Amino acid sequence: MELPLTPLAFGARARRLYGGREAVRDGEVTLSYAEFLGRCDRWSSRLQEFGVKPGDRIAYIAQNIPAHLEGYYAVPQVGAVLVPINYRLSAADFVYIVNHSGARVLCVDEDHVEAVEAVRDQMSKVEHFVALEGDRQGWFDYEAGISTASADFEPVSIDENDIITINYTSGTTARPKGVMITHRNAYLNVLGTLAHFAMSPADRYLWTLPMFHANGWTFVWLVTARGAAHVCLRKVDPVAIFQLIGEAGITTLCAAPTVLIGIANAPAEARAPAAGRKVRLLTAGAPPAAVTIDRVERELGWEVQHVYGLTETSPLILLCEPLPEHAGLPAAERAAIKARQGVELVSSGEICVMDEGGRAVPNDGVSLGEICVRGNVVMKGYFRDPEATAAAIKDGWFHTGDAAVVHPDGYVEIKDRFKDVIISGGENISSVEIEGVLLRHPAVQEVSVVGMPHPRWGEAPHAFVVLKTGAVATEAELRRFARDNLAHFKVPQWVTFVKELPKTATGKIQKFILRGREPGIVAQ
Amino acid sequence: MELPLTPLAFGARARRLYGGREAVRDGEVTLSYAEFLGRCDRWSSRLQEFGVKPGDRIAYIAQNIPAHLEGYYAVPQVGAVLVPINYRLSAADFVYIVNHSGARVLCVDEDHVEAVEAVRDQMSKVEHFVALEGDRQGWFDYEAGISTASADFEPVSIDENDIITINYTSGTTARPKGVMITHRNAYLNVLGTLAHFAMSPADRYLWTLPMFHANGWTFVWLVTARGAAHVCLRKVDPVAIFQLIGEAGITTLCAAPTVLIGIANAPAEARAPAAGRKVRLLTAGAPPAAVTIDRVERELGWEVQHVYGLTETSPLILLCEPLPEHAGLPAAERAAIKARQGVELVSSGEICVMDEGGRAVPNDGVSLGEICVRGNVVMKGYFRDPEATAAAIKDGWFHTGDAAVVHPDGYVEIKDRFKDVIISGGENISSVEIEGVLLRHPAVQEVSVVGMPHPRWGEAPHAFVVLKTGAVATEAELRRFARDNLAHFKVPQWVTFVKELPKTATGKIQKFILRGREPGIVAQ
Repeated sequence: MELPLTPLAFGARARRLYGGREAVRDGEVTLSYAEFLGRCDRWSSRLQEFGVKPGDRIAYIAQNIPAHLEGYYAVPQVGAVLVPINYRLSAADFVYIVNHSGARVLCVDEDHVEAVEAVRDQMSKVEHFVALEGDRQGWFDYEAGISTASADFEPVSIDENDIITINYTSGTTARPKGVMITHRNAYLNVLGTLAHFAMSPADRYLWTLPMFHANGWTFVWLVTARGAAHVCLRKVDPVAIFQLIGEAGITTLCAAPTVLIGIANAPAEARAPAAGRKVRLLTAGAPPAAVTIDRVERELGWEVQHVYGLTETSPLILLCEPLPEHAGLPAAERAAIKARQGVELVSSGEICVMDEGGRAVPNDGVSLGEICVRGNVVMKGYFRDPEATAAAIKDGWFHTGDAAVVHPDGYVEIKDRFKDVIISGGENISSVEIEGVLLRHPAVQEVSVVGMPHPRWGEAPHAFVVLKTGAVATEAELRRFARDNLAHFKVPQWVTFVKELPKTATGKIQKFILRGREPGIVAQ
Repeated sequence: MELPLTPLAFGARARRLYGGREAVRDGEVTLSYAEFLGRCDRWSSRLQEFGVKPGDRIAYIAQNIPAHLEGYYAVPQVGAVLVPINYRLSAADFVYIVNHSGARVLCVDEDHVEAVEAVRDQMSKVEHFVALEGDRQGWFDYEAGISTASADFEPVSIDENDIITINYTSGTTARPKGVMITHRNAYLNVLGTLAHFAMSPADRYLWTLPMFHANGWTFVWLVTARGAAHVCLRKVDPVAIFQLIGEAGITTLCAAPTVLIGIANAPAEARAPAAGRKVRLLTAGAPPAAVTIDRVERELGWEVQHVYGLTETSPLILLCEPLPEHAGLPAAERAAIKARQGVELVSSGEICVMDEGGRAVPNDGVSLGEICVRGNVVMKGYFRDPEATAAAIKDGWFHTGDAAVVHPDGYVEIKDRFKDVIISGGENISSVEIEGVLLRHPAVQEVSVVGMPHPRWGEAPHAFVVLKTGAVATEAELRRFARDNLAHFKVPQWVTFVKELPKTATGKIQKFILRGREPGIVAQ
């Protein structure tokens, strides 16, 4: 006997079992699951009063606030599709995504309402502009709206292959693409993640990862599924993170690489409020260097697990799972394993690191292939973009564009984005490998390596380095350090010191910008 | 993008990731996942040589041996349906089930081959009798057969709603009924169980629960999904259990109530080989008295979780999940909570304890209703028995026949089978409640209470008691003990001492046999 696989079932279960437990905390505000889900229901009934029908798109531009989290329940339970937009994008991107998605309703937090107001007249399909916080002329007042709404919205029937969200990729080169995630995708990714990363009603989850980012790696639903508490955080800085870990009893969080680096490099006085807390943490993104993971584990006593996924894969598909035999390894070796992307989750379907002929590369830790995946966590496709869908999903396999090797133990390690591999004198050089080495230098905070035209080798590595505050290093010193730790042809020909690296709104380094730069010219 | 939800995916994943890890241990024999799954493939190709087609039934009568476990992969991967038969049934039952299922192949271990040989001529639809162990005249030799077979069986396509197993219930009153479990049922139950009961490749699972019993609560696939090791056990006695826990490094097991009672009551010298081992254990079945759970946790330092399910629900649907606030409770109170059936798993769909009008009973810990469930873990129906299916699944809800209350915290507690509720002077009396009290008496090992006609009250409770070895107690003493701990109308009118209780082959007490007995007459 079937019921649709949908994360809405996790909300319904939390309502039955966890009504009195804390669902959400945001500063001074706390909501029980009964209160939180009641607010969702009232927002659902307002949306229906707006005329929202199954399949309609509802867009959000919002930080990690309760009203944003409510969207992940209120919107799909009326059969509509949530479009969570990256709030760090430009106003022009907002316009593009809102129009491309055809959203009828746009919900915005108070930090972004001005930016949207300025381009509002370019969003002709939006019928309702909703201010999630505060009262603003010409905007529907969310709080006032739900305070007077009925909780009895009209139930709709959900098919598990219906779309629950459209998540636009940040698009480093092309226009953002709308990733269509189904109810089934999301449900199975939640269960699969839980099979590897145990959570319980005793857990308190800190929202450092933006909810819009692949639906917060599905934690918008996963935390609810296990009756744990969502603790909101607006401004992601290490001081606030350690503060909340202490104050709000945080047990777990997900961290983008920049957040992990910030945590690892936080000074002792920032760390103090969280002293003695043991936090379990998922991190992802290239390169989450071994040294960073190692520091967080050793100095803070936290437990870091490395995961990998893409918006197109719901997102998590690989997890660097500890094996009993890892425990006996020397610390450095264990850290090197921990920096790998790991093995497929039980829910990931099939992962294959493919060579150009579509064959699996051997498990030799050397042969480079592209990570491909097929199965129930792969998106339905890109919204209104059959060409892009066909380019990404070939012969039933979604192609990630990530170049990786498979180690003899089956653990996958990403070497680079395929387009970021440097070909020098006919040899493939992984920019990620060079970055990993330079990050071990005590003066280096962040580094990004790209290929640069070279008269003799065709291309050669060029390293952009951000030094730690107060630290000093010269180009010659870093090149010497690289030579001591790398094959000579991999040593950067050029090292350029910069104040910061160009990043996308989700924190990914924009190598295509670095590729255009001349050595020695500090852009900022 | 969809792939079918099937536990075969867990086997495929183990093959890719865990080929070199230990899959199965049986005495001196150990098989790696590559070896184990290779054996499955070769058996699959033999089955295809037999002419086995998708949808055909293949029956097994076998203890917990590797060849039996192999059936859970080899049979479904050729699209056929596994029929695991309770080996403790009578030869007449074997004939009934084999014929009713229409099995074309029957696989039998060496302990049951004689019993089957004697009724072989009554199983006219069986084309191949397979001896899983040893070489026997007139039987296909399994080991010889797979040693020479090719591993290249013909792949078949699986629909997730295809049937993977037919599990015949033991049927205390009627003919056994064939519960049809789909690939989707089994897959989701595995993921849901893992979301609450974490396992990892470091785990080593001891097979005390028969594999035939609701597919070993899905652990036939769950252990493989997490790359853990299956450790086989033929004879379930506490001495052997503690021995293997020590020798084979067991970390987890599932125990029927009688096994748990055996573990709790094992003498110190039997326990010695497992000293210092911390085992996590799932137990189910009524009544797993608070006192038994408490003893195992306190004396052995193990972690016991109470679960609930039926063959018809794949099976697990409730789990007594610890909450952070339980930790602060006095030990007795915590033990009382631990003996409850608990809350629905994330994968259970919807659970409702319904009154006669089909409404949910209030969460008051008193109002009695029937546990009903709908969702993805409910069976497809009873094989070739639409009447029984229609009687069990009404208005989309599967009716379990178990009478329960819901506590204010949402935790479900079974009070009785509906047919076992005793009605005395117009009051409902739960036989389970009386059993729970008598089990706290230091002389009592096991107890079962049934209703017995009474001239004044219509019915009154009659307790059948098994005393501990060497312990002494009188009827008057036990009635006094009950009076001190129960409402007076619930005190057993009669107490009969017996050497053992009548049980089904799966260890459930057969109350219908006790109901016919006169007080004071010891039957054995």
